Amino acid sequence: MDTVIDYINLNRDRYLDELKTFLAIPSISAIGEHAGDVRRCAEWCAAEMRRIGMEHVTLHETPGHPIVYGDWLGAPGAPTILFYGHYDVQPVDPLHLWDSPPFDATIRDGEIYARGSADDKGQVFMHFKAIEAHMQQNGKLPVNMKIIVEGEEEVGSKNLDDFIESHKDALGADVVVISDSPMFDRGIPSICYGLRGLIYFQIDLRGTKSDLHSGSFGGAVANPNMVLAQILSQLKDKSGRIKIPGFYDDVKALREEERAAWKKLPFNETRYRKDLGAPKLFGETGYSTLERVWARPTVEVNGILGGFTGDGAKTVIPAVSMAKVSMRLVPNQDPDRIAELFETYVKKIAPKTVEVKVTRMHGGKPWMTDFDNPFVQAAGRAIEKGFGKAPVFNREGGSIPVVATFQEILGLPSVLFGVGLPDENAHAPNEKLDLNNFHGGVIASAYLYDEIANTTTR
Amino acid sequence: MDTVIDYINLNRDRYLDELKTFLAIPSISAIGEHAGDVRRCAEWCAAEMRRIGMEHVTLHETPGHPIVYGDWLGAPGAPTILFYGHYDVQPVDPLHLWDSPPFDATIRDGEIYARGSADDKGQVFMHFKAIEAHMQQNGKLPVNMKIIVEGEEEVGSKNLDDFIESHKDALGADVVVISDSPMFDRGIPSICYGLRGLIYFQIDLRGTKSDLHSGSFGGAVANPNMVLAQILSQLKDKSGRIKIPGFYDDVKALREEERAAWKKLPFNETRYRKDLGAPKLFGETGYSTLERVWARPTVEVNGILGGFTGDGAKTVIPAVSMAKVSMRLVPNQDPDRIAELFETYVKKIAPKTVEVKVTRMHGGKPWMTDFDNPFVQAAGRAIEKGFGKAPVFNREGGSIPVVATFQEILGLPSVLFGVGLPDENAHAPNEKLDLNNFHGGVIASAYLYDEIANTTTR
Repeated sequence: MDTVIDYINLNRDRYLDELKTFLAIPSISAIGEHAGDVRRCAEWCAAEMRRIGMEHVTLHETPGHPIVYGDWLGAPGAPTILFYGHYDVQPVDPLHLWDSPPFDATIRDGEIYARGSADDKGQVFMHFKAIEAHMQQNGKLPVNMKIIVEGEEEVGSKNLDDFIESHKDALGADVVVISDSPMFDRGIPSICYGLRGLIYFQIDLRGTKSDLHSGSFGGAVANPNMVLAQILSQLKDKSGRIKIPGFYDDVKALREEERAAWKKLPFNETRYRKDLGAPKLFGETGYSTLERVWARPTVEVNGILGGFTGDGAKTVIPAVSMAKVSMRLVPNQDPDRIAELFETYVKKIAPKTVEVKVTRMHGGKPWMTDFDNPFVQAAGRAIEKGFGKAPVFNREGGSIPVVATFQEILGLPSVLFGVGLPDENAHAPNEKLDLNNFHGGVIASAYLYDEIANTTTR
Repeated sequence: MDTVIDYINLNRDRYLDELKTFLAIPSISAIGEHAGDVRRCAEWCAAEMRRIGMEHVTLHETPGHPIVYGDWLGAPGAPTILFYGHYDVQPVDPLHLWDSPPFDATIRDGEIYARGSADDKGQVFMHFKAIEAHMQQNGKLPVNMKIIVEGEEEVGSKNLDDFIESHKDALGADVVVISDSPMFDRGIPSICYGLRGLIYFQIDLRGTKSDLHSGSFGGAVANPNMVLAQILSQLKDKSGRIKIPGFYDDVKALREEERAAWKKLPFNETRYRKDLGAPKLFGETGYSTLERVWARPTVEVNGILGGFTGDGAKTVIPAVSMAKVSMRLVPNQDPDRIAELFETYVKKIAPKTVEVKVTRMHGGKPWMTDFDNPFVQAAGRAIEKGFGKAPVFNREGGSIPVVATFQEILGLPSVLFGVGLPDENAHAPNEKLDLNNFHGGVIASAYLYDEIANTTTR
């Protein structure tokens, strides 16, 4: 492995220059006018994969943006890694808040600023460069490798499930590796072994057929804004507990070892609160902030709209009002069952004075692997070698639906091997990736393949 | 009086043609580009007032749109009417919902369709034409008459109070006459003797310094949309009663005669509900719909906004959320006191997890006169002569702040002498005025001056 690591250290600057080329392609999947850029980016990935030694590299067409696939299967008897990443990026607006152009990667204070630097091009490219190092030095990888890089992660991966389903056999592997998440904190590398799931709804209320003058009708009809407030306020009680009957039935309790381990993490609640600018933190009674975010479900009102919202005053009783409500789920909550409980509850508590429509939108299942899973432990050792520091084992409050998909369709465990940072601005202006984390990440990835090679031969 | 009425009947068509000219001027006070049209309309009014025989006609400049004043004081010893109306109109959007151009008055099925037809040009013009008839037939009016026609009613009459205050002596009179309201129902003329007042607020909440990802932070911080829902839901209880402590302290109870009289009105609750398209009516327990709207206060959430409200799903915890909340007040509630109670209550029930800002916006006092007031009774007789039917005496749920202003600054009672209809679409597309009500209104106005002349000589 020493020669592989030497190669990585030697080529550090070139790697960075090549990453800049990757970051320069505005592969914004959400915006129709960028469809050509998205395809160009897929082609760039494919060419790069071929260059580093991957075989069978192909662009798989979908009804949306193409999926890039490639593999290297020259290690018979060794385990197979299925690597997943995405080459598409979020939109950039508001553009005026960027300190440097989003598609002209700029280095400042040891960070590379560009859209996609952390999410996810930088982290995909770190694996490409680790593979290159192995190939250049040893002419082979210690494991078999299958790579999927998709172009629709930022728009809900709508065509990925079909692709996986229809290539089930070809995608067989031992473990999935995904690098698309931040580490616990700057200087504190981590391995994530659990994610929350998501269900998202829109609630639409209609009180009357058109808006009414609040003088002429105020007091005689139900006001949909008020009814909406009543419904939403009955979702959570004052202790932060969700009031939907049955909601907690399948929630897997925190293990005592987890709680003990998390208590030891260097987490400063005061700094956290101040960074957010919150007057006071708030969450479910009986749980710490990390526990609330990582291991407890929540209901959030993502949006509300109804009536007059411009400057000034308009005396209107709106005909309709709307809320976007989502829930983060934890193991072993089932999104379908929770959706049913939610819809039943909302319809039960809504008064007969309004029409209620509940529309379910996208979502994903929660996911968790044991943190003593051997692949997770192998990843931990690789991180320690790459960053010179043992990682902490954490969960994440967010959702990566594809992780549950790999579990379900392919029966595969995933290792979340992320080197971003919590302040990376992934979906915001000034997205960035720490250069030391990128470099350490390439080294750690190179070690990861080696560690996984040794894992299944146990 | 017979010759006056004959003149009105004889000139019915010409009156209508002249009204069309008045309605053709797009005097939209809210839209800056129409400032020239608003002034042109003021000048048109002034010219018309001079033509019908008013004297001392002048345009009073204000920081906004001009106020047109004119008087005729040739009836020494007789009472003086101060007539108030407005020549400005509401904006017309959405324009595509109009069946005929808003400023090209069109007659269909006995109604004249145009912006301003009911609110308020048609009703102002009805008095101009009644005055013309008296002047043409008798060379004089039976009363002294002072006329104020303002150009900012639709934008809150912001410069009217100053004008009245600074012309206090010149505006001395016995009674104010205002024709800017609908009658009880088609075929049921009415005299309105009470109005609700209004206070309007904006509530702004801030939870964090910027929007947060609901995966990474959901469950750890208060969600301003949720907190807003909790606050709003605590404003009214399930029986429709307002929960602000002290809110009802000064509410004047309904008189038994009023309740009895209103019970006799031809009001069909089922038709009302169906016309509104409401699944079920809702209001304060223990009161009928008319009582709720005319004589009981209400709190309404006029607007709510927070977080993501576009199509689709965005997993955001908003940094801020906002509500517009207004209250309709009844005699003897004092807006200043209620505002204080409201602000205190909101701040008390808001959790410490968010910053709360309550901003008070415009408003007006509630107003009521005795329905046995001699001027009100005179108006009733005039309506009966004009429409061949005795009017009902009602209150209104809306607010006309200027009525309280005349009471306070000039110490004058007001007579609300309106001939619109509840379905006149005053602030909506396809505003209209019933032609028979217009014609009957000119006749009733002519009688009104006569009746008022006789009233004060009692």
